[in-house]
Amino acid sequence: MIPLGPKADKATVRRHNLSLVLRTVHDAGEVTRARIATRAGLTRAAVSSLVEQLLECGFLTESGKTSSGQAGRPGTVLEVARTGPAGLGVEINVDYIAVCVVDLAGTDRVRLVEHADNRGVPPSQVLTRAARLAARALGSAAEQGLRPVGAHVAVPGLVTGGTVRQAPNLGWKRVAVEGPFARALSALRPAHRALPVSSDNEANAAALAELWYGAGTEGVRSFLYVSGEIGIGGALVLEGELLRGAHGFAGEIGHMVVDPEGPQCRCGARGCLEQYAGQAALLKAAGLDTEAGAPGVAELRRRAGRKDSAALAATERAGRHLGVVLSGVVNLFDPDAVMLGGVYRELAPWLAPAVDGELARRVVSGLWSEDRNRLRAASPLGDAARGAAGAVVREVLADPPAHAERAGA
Amino acid sequence: MIPLGPKADKATVRRHNLSLVLRTVHDAGEVTRARIATRAGLTRAAVSSLVEQLLECGFLTESGKTSSGQAGRPGTVLEVARTGPAGLGVEINVDYIAVCVVDLAGTDRVRLVEHADNRGVPPSQVLTRAARLAARALGSAAEQGLRPVGAHVAVPGLVTGGTVRQAPNLGWKRVAVEGPFARALSALRPAHRALPVSSDNEANAAALAELWYGAGTEGVRSFLYVSGEIGIGGALVLEGELLRGAHGFAGEIGHMVVDPEGPQCRCGARGCLEQYAGQAALLKAAGLDTEAGAPGVAELRRRAGRKDSAALAATERAGRHLGVVLSGVVNLFDPDAVMLGGVYRELAPWLAPAVDGELARRVVSGLWSEDRNRLRAASPLGDAARGAAGAVVREVLADPPAHAERAGA
Repeated sequence: MIPLGPKADKATVRRHNLSLVLRTVHDAGEVTRARIATRAGLTRAAVSSLVEQLLECGFLTESGKTSSGQAGRPGTVLEVARTGPAGLGVEINVDYIAVCVVDLAGTDRVRLVEHADNRGVPPSQVLTRAARLAARALGSAAEQGLRPVGAHVAVPGLVTGGTVRQAPNLGWKRVAVEGPFARALSALRPAHRALPVSSDNEANAAALAELWYGAGTEGVRSFLYVSGEIGIGGALVLEGELLRGAHGFAGEIGHMVVDPEGPQCRCGARGCLEQYAGQAALLKAAGLDTEAGAPGVAELRRRAGRKDSAALAATERAGRHLGVVLSGVVNLFDPDAVMLGGVYRELAPWLAPAVDGELARRVVSGLWSEDRNRLRAASPLGDAARGAAGAVVREVLADPPAHAERAGA
Repeated sequence: MIPLGPKADKATVRRHNLSLVLRTVHDAGEVTRARIATRAGLTRAAVSSLVEQLLECGFLTESGKTSSGQAGRPGTVLEVARTGPAGLGVEINVDYIAVCVVDLAGTDRVRLVEHADNRGVPPSQVLTRAARLAARALGSAAEQGLRPVGAHVAVPGLVTGGTVRQAPNLGWKRVAVEGPFARALSALRPAHRALPVSSDNEANAAALAELWYGAGTEGVRSFLYVSGEIGIGGALVLEGELLRGAHGFAGEIGHMVVDPEGPQCRCGARGCLEQYAGQAALLKAAGLDTEAGAPGVAELRRRAGRKDSAALAATERAGRHLGVVLSGVVNLFDPDAVMLGGVYRELAPWLAPAVDGELARRVVSGLWSEDRNRLRAASPLGDAARGAAGAVVREVLADPPAHAERAGA
């Protein structure tokens, strides 16, 4: 109840304040030293010294502009560096791999996507494939003067301590991710052989991208992110924080039960939502090849667009099942909004009315329909690779000195 | 992201430190001034002055004992006062009203329960009934030298801003609680006419009782509390904090869907869990009168105890449905434990195996069965009235000076 930590020493305080100043500039976009002092509650002298160090290490730049918007002499405007430290994000999904390099300001400066069926492929091969794409991204980043200080790998499965405990749709079970990826990458780019690698669940990374960079989450502090892919990923953000759960496995909405006696799911249980509203179930109901992947979803979208009755029935049915489950989640968590990501984003025009209908009928507060726009399509930029890269950037913002050397400034 | 509050002035710091010292004593049970100084990171002089004020206002007492367990001179042992400031908790449920007075140490010193069918009774009459019971509790509290500084009323429904938005099982819709209760109470006990009244959902209060006073939650930081009554209440505690949700309506597990086409629920939707595992559904399946209330549940328990087949089938069926829904909740938020409260606590020996079976089958991490004892019967003391009283006590601990006058010390 009472935090009783040891007293902070001078070095710790300076470290904390370096982060405070860097985050103040990050959040403000462009800002003078005087304004930083006001916002951060520090003296001008302290801010000058902290800014000096952040400029030297390449975390900040002076834009050359001056601002006289405030009392006193005009000041030079500072912003976070657009070169130097950055984050590398990798998303390994069932039918594609995406990598992203995000700079300190949160802009995605490199983005590469490779479509490939990763099912049934040995995990080591998939990780090598991802490392190859990441190596190419590091090359493009270097050309732009960016130097990622860490890589973060997102996988659609239960990820803990650097290991994928299980990812049924990839067919992975107890697969170590971080070490093999780091080795494959450093073989390709020896200059990055010391790059720290971390890992997380894909839906978590996508939800964080939505929180940090998504247009749909302005003013939204608590939301459910649900992402239709081969499986169905989910993540809960509560008061601006991702809910991880006691073992790091929170958010598994794809295995909430539609019918206890329903079809067998890859997780071992029966009647999971995935079997009713996952990509394969959607394609099957529309009379399409269940293994058709992204082109299949594009075809479903086209057919729904021209009012093909099987396509409309398929999206409506999936939407109803999704809506019933989401109603339960909304009754449990009472979020500000529900974000539809992955293929649900693309299919939202046909899926959303059925989802919304169930929510209106089943959310007990009766508030669902009063607040318009609570069911939203996720931002197209808010994807897992970007969120993963953003996680590295957040670490830099939280403790710049720890990353000063690696940023190579 | 960065808290940029105004600088704390001297009075604010003292106020904060008074709470810090009081909470340190509260958490420690018995403690010397020297030990408080170490734990709270304050100087001995500061602690002496703060303790002096807390003693004067009646928040602390000196036990007379001395302790020489540490270096230096032996010190007098302090503890929180067992007289003076206290909390009054009121639980209005469908077939009973309970009131509880809890002292600063968390002990329930007065506890009164009145069985009464509150369904269909005008809310004003029910609130008057509750006020009468509360008045009796205040009398007993006064005899013990306790003076509640606030009342907190828990109702099984959606409660926000002092109003029950809806409580389908009581038949309440848009009922103001705090004002009418305060007026009824002050008519009976004019000495308490300025007593502040607050309100909350019943399952929230019960979950907080479990968190603060329950034996089952030791070492548990995140749990789901599910309480079978006429309805089914639920509350989520995450990292020691109750999840309230964007509108204060989180935890409505009773309206998660078992079958979208199932029986009509009082909430207006169909196939809610309440219709399969609520008290009436349990009694009906066992061949008992669905309106029999607490005596009906006692009879069900007796019959299950002597292996009556209808009773066993009824608890097994309800347990399976409850287990399917709880699996979804565990997949979503990955808690340390699930606590069965209300009638589920009493029926746990017959209900829990079926619940546990579904959890073992459906929790995707596969971790459910590895961690033993994750499904627990709630502590019998962890009830809503005690949690409601505890909420008042927490307010006192958080800001003692604000309650000094009312405590009448």
